[in-house]
Amino acid sequence: MEQTQSSLEIGMLLYPGLTLLDLIGPQTVFSWHARTHLIWKTRDLVISDTGIGIQPTMTFAECPDHLDILFVPGGFGTNAVMQDAEVLAFLADRAPRSDYVTSVCSGSLILGAAGLLQGYKATSHWALRDTLSTFGAEPVEARVVVDRNRITGGGVTAGIDFGLVLLAKLRGDDAVKLTQLAMEYDPEPPFNAGTPKTAGPAIVEQALRFMAAADARTPDSAGEVSKSLSPHAS
Amino acid sequence: MEQTQSSLEIGMLLYPGLTLLDLIGPQTVFSWHARTHLIWKTRDLVISDTGIGIQPTMTFAECPDHLDILFVPGGFGTNAVMQDAEVLAFLADRAPRSDYVTSVCSGSLILGAAGLLQGYKATSHWALRDTLSTFGAEPVEARVVVDRNRITGGGVTAGIDFGLVLLAKLRGDDAVKLTQLAMEYDPEPPFNAGTPKTAGPAIVEQALRFMAAADARTPDSAGEVSKSLSPHAS
Repeated sequence: MEQTQSSLEIGMLLYPGLTLLDLIGPQTVFSWHARTHLIWKTRDLVISDTGIGIQPTMTFAECPDHLDILFVPGGFGTNAVMQDAEVLAFLADRAPRSDYVTSVCSGSLILGAAGLLQGYKATSHWALRDTLSTFGAEPVEARVVVDRNRITGGGVTAGIDFGLVLLAKLRGDDAVKLTQLAMEYDPEPPFNAGTPKTAGPAIVEQALRFMAAADARTPDSAGEVSKSLSPHAS
Repeated sequence: MEQTQSSLEIGMLLYPGLTLLDLIGPQTVFSWHARTHLIWKTRDLVISDTGIGIQPTMTFAECPDHLDILFVPGGFGTNAVMQDAEVLAFLADRAPRSDYVTSVCSGSLILGAAGLLQGYKATSHWALRDTLSTFGAEPVEARVVVDRNRITGGGVTAGIDFGLVLLAKLRGDDAVKLTQLAMEYDPEPPFNAGTPKTAGPAIVEQALRFMAAADARTPDSAGEVSKSLSPHAS
């Protein structure tokens, strides 16, 4: 098992307005198997989309050349980052030197904007999934999508499943079972309402309104997520 | 729905060595329905059990008198906090003025140490659940346990289910469905290995060894979690 292997090196992008659960889900999955680097332009505190401050552990310049996993979370700050040349250049530089290039939620749109999903199958948060085609990616309705070394997860909580799928590739099934047990991952969702199909149109419409309002409240959002949130998304 | 209601006030305890997912799970669930306060002795960065720095938003002295929810996460730093008179006094002071007194994972041991679970049914991480009886609580093998206004969740990922159960009480079923959809909470665990019974004895033993090793690595842990981790826990 992984005790006999060297630690994985994982680089996780931080940015203002990220959704912290997108990142903390897989970070927790990997925590016993990896050294996690939280990476941003500076080491100044980064504020999440719900106002929580988190500390980068290194800057772009300090990030190792080779990473086992390059990871990008989603969040209401996604659109500002999709237009940030410094971030996109960092991702485009490290991706070819990373074993896996990955994302959760709207993080896949950032990978797309960096030119890293051209010709790949990928997923994203359900409300934004179809916009992946803008970047030459093929949107797939699935919780975790694996296409060669691109692995993308769906919205927010999909990050836990994404992390476990990727851990299985790197460390095998027993490491995944051990991690599920340690995290007591035996979920009991109170309702079958985690997808647009199962939640139904009334809840979908409410969720889109809430997400647009949350997007508008996010200081670093360019408001683009709101514009792409269509009541007909599914 | 909650748009017509005032925001919930939630006080979440931070401490060195907390497990961040214990807190970020329910924090994300509540984020559209609540103002979340992250509370510690000072506003200095608090370092989680996997080395992530998170910023308190207020000190004990600044915390509102009345809270809708008082919440305590678990983590490998639990034992140091269970012996910290300042933290226990804060919890004992705010609990009688809070509508709900709650925890996830080993956070219930902190509530117990503060005298807040005497005569209550409660749960914790599976490996530590039985130690709740030390504090006059009745351990229950369940993912979320509700006993009057004490609501406790199991280990780590149980925090998401815990948050949704509590949200249903405060804001109703539609708010829960909306939140599940926005968080795309339609989990797909790769294995049925999230409990000791389903994981089996070999994985249980490995998990206990890993947790003891992680505990020993946690700078602020007193090592007490290791001592209570028995290979016969279930």
